[in-house]
This record gives sequence, C-alpha cells and structure tokens, in this order.
Amino acid sequence: MKNPKAGYTLGFDFGTNSVRALLVDIRNGRELATAICRYGSGREGILLDPKNPNLARQNPADYLKGIEVAVRQTLARAKKMDRAFDPARVIGIGVDTTGSTPIPVDKDGTPLAFHKEFRRNLNAMAWLWKDHTGFAEAAEITALAAKEHPEYLAKCGGTYSSEWFFSKILHCLRIDPNVFEAAASWVECCDYIPAVLVGETRPDRLLRGRCAAGHKAMFNAQWGGLPAKDFLAKLDPKLGALRDRLYETTSTSDVPAGKLAASWAKKLGLPAAIPVAVGAFDAHLGAVGSGVFPGKFVKIVGTSTCDVCVWPSDRPLADIPGLCGIVDGSVLPGYFGLEAGQSAVGDIFNWFVECVRPGGVVQGSHAALTRGAAKLKPGQSGLLALDWNNGNRTVLVDQRLTGLLLGQTLHTEPEEIYRTLIEATAFGALTIIRRFEEYGIRIDEVINCGGIAEKNPLVMQIYADVIGKEMKVARSAQTCALGSAIAGAVAAGRAAGGYETFAEAQAAMCGVKAKTFKPDRSNGAVYGQLYRLYRQLHDGFGTKEWSGSMYNVMKDLLAIRDRQLTI
Amino acid sequence: MKNPKAGYTLGFDFGTNSVRALLVDIRNGRELATAICRYGSGREGILLDPKNPNLARQNPADYLKGIEVAVRQTLARAKKMDRAFDPARVIGIGVDTTGSTPIPVDKDGTPLAFHKEFRRNLNAMAWLWKDHTGFAEAAEITALAAKEHPEYLAKCGGTYSSEWFFSKILHCLRIDPNVFEAAASWVECCDYIPAVLVGETRPDRLLRGRCAAGHKAMFNAQWGGLPAKDFLAKLDPKLGALRDRLYETTSTSDVPAGKLAASWAKKLGLPAAIPVAVGAFDAHLGAVGSGVFPGKFVKIVGTSTCDVCVWPSDRPLADIPGLCGIVDGSVLPGYFGLEAGQSAVGDIFNWFVECVRPGGVVQGSHAALTRGAAKLKPGQSGLLALDWNNGNRTVLVDQRLTGLLLGQTLHTEPEEIYRTLIEATAFGALTIIRRFEEYGIRIDEVINCGGIAEKNPLVMQIYADVIGKEMKVARSAQTCALGSAIAGAVAAGRAAGGYETFAEAQAAMCGVKAKTFKPDRSNGAVYGQLYRLYRQLHDGFGTKEWSGSMYNVMKDLLAIRDRQLTI
Repeated sequence: MKNPKAGYTLGFDFGTNSVRALLVDIRNGRELATAICRYGSGREGILLDPKNPNLARQNPADYLKGIEVAVRQTLARAKKMDRAFDPARVIGIGVDTTGSTPIPVDKDGTPLAFHKEFRRNLNAMAWLWKDHTGFAEAAEITALAAKEHPEYLAKCGGTYSSEWFFSKILHCLRIDPNVFEAAASWVECCDYIPAVLVGETRPDRLLRGRCAAGHKAMFNAQWGGLPAKDFLAKLDPKLGALRDRLYETTSTSDVPAGKLAASWAKKLGLPAAIPVAVGAFDAHLGAVGSGVFPGKFVKIVGTSTCDVCVWPSDRPLADIPGLCGIVDGSVLPGYFGLEAGQSAVGDIFNWFVECVRPGGVVQGSHAALTRGAAKLKPGQSGLLALDWNNGNRTVLVDQRLTGLLLGQTLHTEPEEIYRTLIEATAFGALTIIRRFEEYGIRIDEVINCGGIAEKNPLVMQIYADVIGKEMKVARSAQTCALGSAIAGAVAAGRAAGGYETFAEAQAAMCGVKAKTFKPDRSNGAVYGQLYRLYRQLHDGFGTKEWSGSMYNVMKDLLAIRDRQLTI
Repeated sequence: MKNPKAGYTLGFDFGTNSVRALLVDIRNGRELATAICRYGSGREGILLDPKNPNLARQNPADYLKGIEVAVRQTLARAKKMDRAFDPARVIGIGVDTTGSTPIPVDKDGTPLAFHKEFRRNLNAMAWLWKDHTGFAEAAEITALAAKEHPEYLAKCGGTYSSEWFFSKILHCLRIDPNVFEAAASWVECCDYIPAVLVGETRPDRLLRGRCAAGHKAMFNAQWGGLPAKDFLAKLDPKLGALRDRLYETTSTSDVPAGKLAASWAKKLGLPAAIPVAVGAFDAHLGAVGSGVFPGKFVKIVGTSTCDVCVWPSDRPLADIPGLCGIVDGSVLPGYFGLEAGQSAVGDIFNWFVECVRPGGVVQGSHAALTRGAAKLKPGQSGLLALDWNNGNRTVLVDQRLTGLLLGQTLHTEPEEIYRTLIEATAFGALTIIRRFEEYGIRIDEVINCGGIAEKNPLVMQIYADVIGKEMKVARSAQTCALGSAIAGAVAAGRAAGGYETFAEAQAAMCGVKAKTFKPDRSNGAVYGQLYRLYRQLHDGFGTKEWSGSMYNVMKDLLAIRDRQLTI
C-alpha cells in the first residue's frame, strides 16, 4: 500500500545551552535538515550567581531569538539538501524543553524579565531545571505532603525536589516578594514556547502540558488537578492564592496548542496556521522519538540518564516506590508515562577524565580509557563502585549520597577504574529496570539514545551484559527533536497529512540502528555475582533498613578476580 | 663530666636494593661518612621470575661485594671529611638486614648459590623477605598451628606469613627437593653477614639472632626454642629432621657474633679482631637508632610502616591480638620487642601518583599534590578511605583486603583524594597505637623515621592531629644503620671504648630533630569524628564479627563537610 502522506514536520528541542530545530519527512522520519542556536546570555546560556552555586537561570529572550535563528538556518539547509523542498509543505510543529523551568509572567503572559524594572533581576528570569536554590522549600513541601497528603508524594517517588515548580515559586516568594507579587502566573518553559508561537500567551488561556504539570507540579486527576489550595496555603497563604492563577486542566501533546501565528509564520518563513502541539519535556518526547511503547523501555544516556516507559492507563498500576514520576498521558495519550533516572552517568566518566585527569592529558582521554577498559574481563580488576557521585535519583531518591570505589590495590590502573565506573552505572540501570519489573511493568526491549549510546559501544555492551537484555540504539541522533516533530505530525492530524495517533506516527518515523548489543552469557554470569555485591553496598550505604556484615565484599571480589585471571 | 670515650663504630644496613655502611662517632652519634652499594644482580638487586610474580630472590654474592664497596667508600669519605680520621679507631661493627631472608647453606655455611651446580637455581639463592611463593605453605602452617599449637600463633598476630622462614623452606622442600636435600641448614641473612665477617659460617657454630628467630621462626623460650620437631614433621618429615640442623639457642645484639676476621680486616682496611654484633632486622635496629625505649614508640614510615616498641621483660604482658610479633630481646636485651605495621603507606601515595597519575605528569607529583592537600581542612572534601591497597598487617593480619574510597562527588579533585589517602594511613596508625594502649603499653612519645617522616611535614602534621600525640622525627636520616652502629658499640663493650648497655649508647648517640609536630586541637576534634567512621568501615569490611548499618557513613561525612566549609 502506498503511503499517501507527504510533507514535513518541525521539531524544537530547547536544551540547557541551545535550541535545536529539526525538519523531518513525515513519511519515514528522514531528517532533512537541522540547526542549533546557542543561547547568548550568561555562561553557555545559563545565568549564574557567583555567590550562590545553587542558582541557574535563563533569559527567555534567548528562547525567542533561538527559534528564529534555528528555523531559518534549518530551512536554508533543507533547501540546500533538496532543491525541491518547499517550506509550504511543513504541516506541524512540536516543542520540547528542559523542565521544570518555570517563568514568572504578567497578565498577558509576557515574562517579567522583559519588563524594564526586572530586566536585571535573576528572579524574574526562567528558573532553569537545575536551579537548586529552593532546596529548603523542597524539604518543607516534602515534609508537609508526607504529613497531610502522602498521595502527592507517592506519584513522584516519595520526595518533592528542589528542581521542581513549587519549590522554585515558594523560594521566589520568600526571597523576592516583588517578583512574586508582580507575577500574574508562572508558566513552564514547555508551555510558554508553544503559547508564543500560536500567539496566545495569556496565562488563563494558554494550554498547559500534562507532562510538566504531572511530573513537577503534582497535578493529578485523582485529587482534582494541582495540590489543594489549603495545602499550598499552609506553605504560604500567597502560594495558596496563586493556585487560582495557575490552571485547572492540562493537555497531552497530541492536542494542538493552537495554530502558528501569522507574525511568527512570516518571521520564520513557514505557512501560517499550521498546528503547534502542546509542549512536553525533552526526555518524554525523546522517548517518543525512540519509539517508546508498552514493552519498549527507553534509556536516554548522557551526562545523566533518563529512563522512560509507558503503561496502558486502563490497566492497573501500583505506585512504584522510588520512581521520579507516574503521570497519565505525560508521554503518550492513553498511557501512564513512567520516569526514572540516574543522577550522573556520563558525568561520572567526565569527572574521572576531567577532574581526576588520570594518566596525563593525552593518555587519559575517554577514547584511550575506553580502549584500555575494553581489553578487561568483567571482575578481573577486583574493583566495584557505586554510581552515586551526584546522588541517587532512582530508586533511592536521595541526593545526599556520594561515590564509592572499592577493591583497589597498589597496581590498580586508570582503565580498570574507568571500566568499573561504567559497570557501576550499568548496575544502577539494572536496579531501575528490576524495580519496574518487580511492579509488573513488562520490558521486552531496551532502546538507548543520547550521546553515550551514540558514541560508546563499550558502554552499550556492558549494559547488555549486566542487564541481560539486548541493547538497541535509536536510529535518530536527535530523538528529542524527532519526538517533538512527531508530536507536531500528530497534532496536525490525518486530515492535514499527519497522523491520527502517536503509535501510527512512531511506526512510520522511528527506528533503531542495525547494530545492536547482545548480552554475553558468560560475562553475564560474572556480572550476576558482581551485582549481588553492588546491591549489598547499595542497600548497605543507601537504605536505613539494611543491616548486616560487609566482610564478604572484598573477599568475594578477590575470588572473582582470581577466577577471571585464570580462565 | 667529660666523656672519656673516643672512636667510631660502623653500622651496616642491608636493604632490599642496596647495602649501606655508616661510620658514626661513638661519643655523640655524629655521622662522619656513609656510602651505599647497589646490588648487581637481577632487577635492582632482586632476582625475579617472569612466570611467577610471587618470587623474589637475591644473590648472596651481592652482599659480600656490597660490604667491600660500601666500607671502602665510607672510609675514603671519612678521610675526606676529617683528615685526622684513622680507621684504627673503629671499635665495633653492627649489622641489620631485611628479613625473613633465609639462605640455604652447605655444612660449611657457604650458600648453595655459590656451588657451581646451583649457581643458576633461584631456589638456591637468598629468599628475599617479600618472596610470597610459600603462600600455600604459610596457610598450611597456620592451620596446623591453630589446631595443635595456638601458642605459636599468639606471639605472631594469629597468622604465620608466607614471608617467613618456615613457609619458604617448606615451599623449597616441595618444589625443589634437590636444593632442600643439599642444604645442611638455612641461615637468615642477618645471621649470615656477621658470620661471614667473623669467619665462622658453620651453621652449627654461628650465632643466631633472637630477632629473626623470634619474629619469623616461632622461636620462644616458652616452648623450648623452635617449634616442636613433631609439629614440623607433621608438615613434612624432612622439615622435622631439619630442626636438628637449625639451632637451639639465640643471642641478642649486645652480644658479639665474634671478632672481625683478619682476611676481612685486610680487605676492608679496618683493624682486625674488632667485635661484630649479632645481627638483627632493619626495623628493629632502626628503632634502636631512633631511641626506642619503654614509652617511646617508633614508627618507621616509608613505602610501608613498621612500628616498634619495647616493654620490660620482667613486667606482665598479655598476648596482643593482631601484632606481628612479641619477642623477648628482639630489639633491646631485657625487653620484649613488639612489632606492628601497615602493609602500605608511601606505596599508597605512590600508587596514586604513579598508577592513577592524576592531573597529568607535572601537576600530579607528590610535591604538587601535597601543596594542594595542605590547603584543605580536615573533612572538607567529604572523602574517607581505607588504607588497605596492600592488605592490612596490623591489627587485622589479613592480606586479602583491598582499598576503599568513599564520598567522591562530580567535583572531587586529586589533591582531595591525596589528602584522604594520607589521612587513611593516619587512621591506620592510630588503630595500631590504640591496640597497644588497650593492652597496657604506655606510649608517651612517638618518634618517626624513614623517608616519609624525613620528607613530608604534611604527613607528620596529619599524624599528630589524628593520633593526638606530638610527632617527633629521629635526628638521623639513617636510623637503621645507626642502630647497627650502636649494636657494634655495645658489642664492643665499655672496656674497648664502647658502651655497657643500649640505653647508655642511645643516650649518647640518638636524638630527635628540633622541629616537631604538635597536635592541633580543633583538627583533632574533626578527625575524632572521621575516625569513628573509619573504624566503622574498618570493622565492617575487615572483621567477621561486625554487623550493622552503613547508612550513616555518607550522611555523616556530608554533615562534617558542610560544617567545615562554613567555619
């Protein structure tokens, strides 16, 4: 059957340092052209405060400029690639951003940062996802919820994070009441961008995405949307009052936030009135772009890792302890989106290479260490590590954990440590997957994407051996932007040449690379032994409940080492 | 009162790679001249087997050549320093060596290595202290002793080591019966050298030192000397038979092994017939040269650490669990010599610098890391380590333990790790000192010597702060050779211009440097908190008995870090 569809869809991916635009052929997912625009403000796009390492803000003006630059360059490149390319054939737009990245806005939806009086005030800017200034407020919210509404916490792993919506807003209220008072509302970056594109930024009218609301603002249909007004009011009466100026409903990303405003269409050189999908977070649309579906578990492996899977909304699902979030429709409409993650993966390898700087500058590069590590057998170094240099997001949900390396002798070499750090992140990944499976989530396939999945086959092979499942790698190197583009195609709908459902769009537009990584059975057996020891350390240092002896750990590692060295 | 003494004494220190001769003024310990001779055989004096990393042997011919070269050069330098110097004024000679370093000899005491048929046979050479080929035999000896003679083990910390006398001989018997059969006896290197110098090498006549016999061959008056013949015969009948060809009595180092043979006197340019003291191990005479005495605890801090103290033989002393050895007269006649140690200290710092090679080649030197580490406050890195990269000699007596580093984040820098490794060795040192004190050994002063004590004031200051005692550093940089020289002066006796007792000789010839390291009270308080956590890891990973939770460790370290960063 011939595919009658034709045309392109445009995906935006607003990252931490830059925005990417990606133009995708709607029939097959072919990526015709892409471009990025780095944000101009601050340090690599991030506004910092030398006196407060927890602070990380962004200037919303960078987003708007980025749209223009990235789209114009993408369209120019598309023309170069394909002389027949016509921008008029773009039928939809989708948007993902970092988050939770809330922006204080006035009653028209204009960021306070654009007001003259606030233009130098960091608190009037976008509060970037990794801003931790609200850590005390996060603890306060967690404590109150634990006491009065434990159900709020059950959906977000048991702890409300300093990176999230209300921690940031409450902190702003406490330290800069002028900004808080001036804000008619607060809008997540992933909702702000589509609102701008469709020309409807009024906070009482713009559509709010289910993804950000559910994962970061404790929005859930079970308790009628956002947390109860009296709950918020107990934190601060003004926060309670703000609830009325936030939102009552949310939308999934198959829904158009509206149609591209004429002014923007002109600026960008695109047809006016094409649908712009409701926005979502990068990891969630990245999972879509990787082909997430029940049974297909997506790992976005980069400096940190985000794990995403889905489960039909009409099938029973228990709260899973330790998960960052379980939100109906946050990834695919009609499915619970489940999010987990590791606080540092590539960042741990980067720490070893860039902070410890082993073996001198040249010999100690990732490439050289990977080459050395690839020559080692599992367990032959006698080393074992915990992957907690940046805390543990899933399943312990505890930022106040730290790294551990054990088993070093007088002969331990850098490549042995490097491999051990890779293995530690693999054990962390396995711990997450086991937690999902223990709670009945079936996982048939693991699809990896992100920088490390793209670049480091050793990591993928170790993950396959440790996890005992075939590791596949998403075909696209830009799964987040591809997921956004898919959302655009679904928001456009079949009538406009797009798709009726995400499943249809994914079937046509997603895929995995031919090269996959199959688990090695004998390596897997050794990793099984090492994982038991990892879990012993994990539970011993990471949980209050564990009690026992650690005497076996070093002995068992030496026994495994001795066996591996003699075979 | 004017000191009527005059003259010089000559100390030999036979190390792992070279022999040193040191000429000392008997009145005041002034070191007139010294010279070393590197052993010519093998790799830096050690004969290795590429197929067996446990093997480490030495060619006894290197010792004999070393005596000549080192003494001639020392005397030549002495003449240069002081034109009035006359070799005729040398009144005594002392010898220390590594150990246990047994040598198989024929009935005349000639090393089998000097026989044509064995000159290429590594098993006919000296079995250097760090030869571990007898590890299986060591386990066998330990197991049999635990069953039949636990009192043998009680004096050597509970485990008979692969580095020791009978493990090596039994291993030789098992793998090279030709060598075993050809050996009329086995002689410790520290007994062989004096025997050669005095011209009486016959194994049934030469004097055997108490130090080597007691610490490495389970010699003890309590059970009538060496282990019982039937005990050795159970290991192997031929080992039982060998006991008759070993020795029944031992001597302390105040006793002359004899007088310098005329042939050697001529070869060396020394007066004939001067007394040569019975030999002992380097660490024990090093302690003498540092001024060891009841209340004065000596730490020889180098690649590993040896701790030595003494206790009056006529006062009650319990067996102290975990100590390497308790031997009457092994250090000073009339006193129990107590030996403990850490398997790696400088070797751990060397591992970090030479194997991990942090921060590139130039930035990562010991000097640069020490400079960086010196700027840090205790606890501010949030790190904690165990000093077990080479196992734990005291108090756990377990070579199958490994290193541990805990608390690293994404920002942990090399100098933080370096300081943490120094602190770990300080905590290990404190654990040893506490064990001595718990068993009633009074420690008023700690006198340090060895390369690290000489070179690294930061290490000494951290030791002072952690241990809570003033750290003094021995005045001499060659305390082992100085201790040998003192033994020579005592063996010579008062009539010959020497000393009646070690105490007299030490009072005249030993001292500490003016610069000492006083404990800082506020650092000590922080280290007290860190040491509790170190002990938790130490007992948790190092003992079968410990059981409990490790959950507090990372939390407590972060709490200490946060406090240290804010004051």
